[in-house]
Amino acid sequence: MKTARVRYEGDCHEATEANGQVMLQDGRMLTEMDVEWLPPIEPRTTFALGLNYADHASELAFQAPEEPLLFLKGPNTFVGHRNKTVRPEDVTFMHYECELAVVIGETARDVAENEAYRYVLGYTIANDYAFRDYLENYYRPNLRVKNRDHSTPLGPWLVTADEVPDPMNLMLRTYVNGVLTQEGSTRDMVFTIPQLIAHISSFMTLSKGDVILTGTPKGTVNVEVGDEIITEIEGLGKLANTIVREKQAVGRS
Amino acid sequence: MKTARVRYEGDCHEATEANGQVMLQDGRMLTEMDVEWLPPIEPRTTFALGLNYADHASELAFQAPEEPLLFLKGPNTFVGHRNKTVRPEDVTFMHYECELAVVIGETARDVAENEAYRYVLGYTIANDYAFRDYLENYYRPNLRVKNRDHSTPLGPWLVTADEVPDPMNLMLRTYVNGVLTQEGSTRDMVFTIPQLIAHISSFMTLSKGDVILTGTPKGTVNVEVGDEIITEIEGLGKLANTIVREKQAVGRS
Repeated sequence: MKTARVRYEGDCHEATEANGQVMLQDGRMLTEMDVEWLPPIEPRTTFALGLNYADHASELAFQAPEEPLLFLKGPNTFVGHRNKTVRPEDVTFMHYECELAVVIGETARDVAENEAYRYVLGYTIANDYAFRDYLENYYRPNLRVKNRDHSTPLGPWLVTADEVPDPMNLMLRTYVNGVLTQEGSTRDMVFTIPQLIAHISSFMTLSKGDVILTGTPKGTVNVEVGDEIITEIEGLGKLANTIVREKQAVGRS
Repeated sequence: MKTARVRYEGDCHEATEANGQVMLQDGRMLTEMDVEWLPPIEPRTTFALGLNYADHASELAFQAPEEPLLFLKGPNTFVGHRNKTVRPEDVTFMHYECELAVVIGETARDVAENEAYRYVLGYTIANDYAFRDYLENYYRPNLRVKNRDHSTPLGPWLVTADEVPDPMNLMLRTYVNGVLTQEGSTRDMVFTIPQLIAHISSFMTLSKGDVILTGTPKGTVNVEVGDEIITEIEGLGKLANTIVREKQAVGRS
């Protein structure tokens, strides 16, 4: 099943995908363009991974890590499909990052790798933008790199795990203004989804609604105001986002 | 006003402080020992500060930072007054850290230092334990240092800002089994509360329920199973915590 959270005529709705369209719980059928898309879930704790594809680590002149490089993200960062993300005035490098987002479905502690998929509710697409100017700081990543408002589009759909038979073998692609700029496969992750769940749950509890953003392959490039960025993952869909100036943001962002 | 969240006879209650006792909303008066203490708020985003007292930075052989060293903590970390925190089997150094916790009361973006206190709802005490073995990692602090379950006692009370006329001039003290081991004053913070609110809100939105843990002065020492740790802040109260082995934790921690 593919589920979403959308706003339509001022109200928030749970929705499901039906024949490529958006079906509200009362049965009304809408198109993708009719609704305002919210993130498909409200994440509880969000974990993100640095350098979890060897080709991307190499591209940034790093060695692949020996253990997962984890950090946390706040709820202010998320925005839904077809929304806007601000390019701050003071930033020189703003890179998209197409990532498979793993949504935890139940409490997990000390989980073995071969049991890990039992704790997965489903998957969605994240575009975990990085504002690279501010990477250096004793505590990394600096929150200015990875925790700005609306800097992480998520969605459009949460796809339940039963519809994703092999999440470790999905193509990821990013298009900037229609041009393919990033391509990789989840099979090239340094730490696999079961390894990540086993690792995190070895020292803390994972809970329902927690989200793990599993890292991005090589091919991240700078984006500019006006660009449309589409991050796509095989079987999950396409997540669209537009880069705007600070004053173009909806509300203050 | 001092408010708390407590569990009594199986139910969760909002409570207020009255004559040194715990008053439930229905007027019942209870003692501190009658109730199970929950954290006084459920934090939304929690920000923590590294090395925000120059004497503590010096103690750890670091220079005081030139900008705030911020990181995030997840909701799994919090536990209330008079609760237990696990000392993991695989850890050599477990240090308490007495910290003033600042609770944000309303949405804040691009706030000037001289307006910052308007956005503060109140204050509480945090004991932000660090498991120092795992400090080194490209992304710091490693989540094993600062994000373990129940590793951050919070409380007992949320004290509203009107009862704390000068939060930048409060004594902090920690007692291990009754012996004073840490003493400092919030006036020695490297970055003040207004500076922290101005800094964070300069690149992202602070929201109601967000919490800033403002760092700890010098005097952190290793604690062992069985120790009782009391972190005290002038005007806010005393927050008690006991260190237990993994199997002594209530439930799995």
